[in-house]
Amino acid sequence: MNKKPVNGMRDILPAEMKIRDYVLRVIRETYRDFGFTEIETPCVESIENLSSRQGGENEKLIFKIMKRGEKLNLQTAQSEGDLVDSGLRYDLTVPLSRYFANHQADLPKPFKALQIGPVWRAERPQKGRFRQFYQCDIDIFGDGTNLAETELILAMSTVLSRIGFRNFNIRINDRRILKAMAACSGLSEDSYDEIFIALDKLDKIGEEGVAKELLALGMEEEAVSRYLELFRSVDGVEGTRAVDTLAASLGGALDPAVAENMKQIFELVLAASTVPFDLIFDPTLVRGMGYYTGPIFEIAVPEFGSSVGGGGRYDEMVGRFAGQPTPACGFSIGFERIITILMENGFEIPGSKEKTALLLERGLSPEKTAAALKDAQQLRAEGRQVLTASMIKNRKFQKEQLAAEGYLDIREYYENPIER
Amino acid sequence: MNKKPVNGMRDILPAEMKIRDYVLRVIRETYRDFGFTEIETPCVESIENLSSRQGGENEKLIFKIMKRGEKLNLQTAQSEGDLVDSGLRYDLTVPLSRYFANHQADLPKPFKALQIGPVWRAERPQKGRFRQFYQCDIDIFGDGTNLAETELILAMSTVLSRIGFRNFNIRINDRRILKAMAACSGLSEDSYDEIFIALDKLDKIGEEGVAKELLALGMEEEAVSRYLELFRSVDGVEGTRAVDTLAASLGGALDPAVAENMKQIFELVLAASTVPFDLIFDPTLVRGMGYYTGPIFEIAVPEFGSSVGGGGRYDEMVGRFAGQPTPACGFSIGFERIITILMENGFEIPGSKEKTALLLERGLSPEKTAAALKDAQQLRAEGRQVLTASMIKNRKFQKEQLAAEGYLDIREYYENPIER
Repeated sequence: MNKKPVNGMRDILPAEMKIRDYVLRVIRETYRDFGFTEIETPCVESIENLSSRQGGENEKLIFKIMKRGEKLNLQTAQSEGDLVDSGLRYDLTVPLSRYFANHQADLPKPFKALQIGPVWRAERPQKGRFRQFYQCDIDIFGDGTNLAETELILAMSTVLSRIGFRNFNIRINDRRILKAMAACSGLSEDSYDEIFIALDKLDKIGEEGVAKELLALGMEEEAVSRYLELFRSVDGVEGTRAVDTLAASLGGALDPAVAENMKQIFELVLAASTVPFDLIFDPTLVRGMGYYTGPIFEIAVPEFGSSVGGGGRYDEMVGRFAGQPTPACGFSIGFERIITILMENGFEIPGSKEKTALLLERGLSPEKTAAALKDAQQLRAEGRQVLTASMIKNRKFQKEQLAAEGYLDIREYYENPIER
Repeated sequence: MNKKPVNGMRDILPAEMKIRDYVLRVIRETYRDFGFTEIETPCVESIENLSSRQGGENEKLIFKIMKRGEKLNLQTAQSEGDLVDSGLRYDLTVPLSRYFANHQADLPKPFKALQIGPVWRAERPQKGRFRQFYQCDIDIFGDGTNLAETELILAMSTVLSRIGFRNFNIRINDRRILKAMAACSGLSEDSYDEIFIALDKLDKIGEEGVAKELLALGMEEEAVSRYLELFRSVDGVEGTRAVDTLAASLGGALDPAVAENMKQIFELVLAASTVPFDLIFDPTLVRGMGYYTGPIFEIAVPEFGSSVGGGGRYDEMVGRFAGQPTPACGFSIGFERIITILMENGFEIPGSKEKTALLLERGLSPEKTAAALKDAQQLRAEGRQVLTASMIKNRKFQKEQLAAEGYLDIREYYENPIER
């Protein structure tokens, strides 16, 4: 039997687990304060739902589950599709949309959902990337107004602040602004996906690099130059002023309601936020998933490099399950990334209980053992975390290990204490 | 796209989810008080580990995962085994034993583990039984003394008590007593598995039914009669007195240390327990899994019929992974069963926050919206759970739904409040 976890997945050790549990508690409590209700979907989804082209590249990475019993017929199977009936979910958004469509009649309207759980992607194993990882999503179904975006931003920033992050920022854009900028520059609509993939690399490859990629896609030089000029025109311009500047340049290519909506989100968030963070309008923000239809956002802690969450509005996905379109807007926390940052920075869980360890000599009489167990119960009743354990031969090592785990109060129980 | 969950699995609605979350919190906090540390293993295990005959009948119920990429070759595949490399775990004990073997050097000794998570079994779907369900296990590795059994019983009974159960009992037996009783009666060792399966039905089919099954297995009438007489001899005899009575009848067939061990567990639990429950010596208790080697126990709440947890000592499993045997003892909570009982009995979560809902008229100006959002933040700061939501057309229905969810304080925000 193999004592390693399967390739690309990992066991979680106690020290990390404590931090994960603490962060999950903060996430749950905070989102609950904001009126989100937790739900759960099975980890397994039907293969049709997972292969419906909602998931982009992720659909290539599905762990597929074999049919069972009579339904499995190796002899007559022509292709993989004949052998498989389900798979492990690659995100929480597809199952959540299915869930909402399925239980709509039993759910409050609008519905504010919290979902936390593992997802799986069979990516090439690499440092810091695993094939099973957790996602924490909040989503609001049935609210087409920017109250949804605002609440998501307020809730998410409160979570980060309660975990202990300072100096984070939320960048925001709108898929419709993204498209209007491309349209207004004369870039061809057929290539939007590729154009945005190139634009997404702006901070890595610079303006010249993006220009090069766009030209390689067959875009006209003049259009590319107009396009990049648009971004330059709001470089260093902040927030709603940048939105106004862009809206003026874009003219008829952008519905004025879209610009107005963006400005209102700024206004609402700034008025109601009780934690400090920067809200930044960033016309270069793309977000990979094709299902977004309106505002999109990404949250980052610059001192730790990368994004720790993101989301946006996806008004068309639920309709694919439910028959009728339902506005939807969601935010996903990069849970594993946050845990990594906390682990690397020696995070201390606040408000942990004091810890006492009682070590019992091997062969201690039942009377003395009972006395030790009663002491343990008494200390627990006083609010301490109490471990009882049999002594091992190397008592010094055992005590060092316990001290490393935070057991600063270690008491020993011997049959004949006087002799020691 | 299919809006139903896959066959045999289920979506969890908000009302149940709140209770699950609450119970999990009680479980985690209580076990932590007893010095257990939480760990996590991947949901996916290698197919070799799942098919090693540790899991008994469960091994027939594995959800198997297809190989991917180059490793998957439909043309050359002769059997299922050629197509599959892993599967979803059917319990937490096999992964935990693998985990302990893998990380032994980094873990404290003895190691007290808590593991909570979903497991999967492709059973025929039926009422109350699902193909994905949660298990909550505590296990102690590296302690061969009865301190392990005692602590498991104390911790588990404290959990049940904190959840709110009264009048529960823990039945205890020892696999070695079970075997000694069969041996002493002259039943043949080759048939122990079948004999114990028959014995396990005693409360359903009665003494006569068991006798019939044993005779059908080819046992001698005299042996069967001796065997059943042994059980009768302790009928109505309680606790350690029953152990003494049996030990006297069994004579050399039972190692006196086994009886002594059982009596000590009684003594220790009764001395140290701070919550009321009945500890019952039950020589008819079997526990299905073949891997148990010593004491076994089962916890039940008689007014709700069935068992809500069980466990025992399994000193030989870790050795199959680690190379060297490590004593192990564990207890598994029947989490789904407990949730069902609580749901059916209108369980109220204690200490929930007061809930306020703010309903915002559609088209409310940004100024009034901001004011409402600020009110929400203020109420949250005062410790309330606050939902903000856009009004839907059927406002009366919306308010009824909110009231049903516990939002007893509902406030409405209109652009022109005077007109109403």
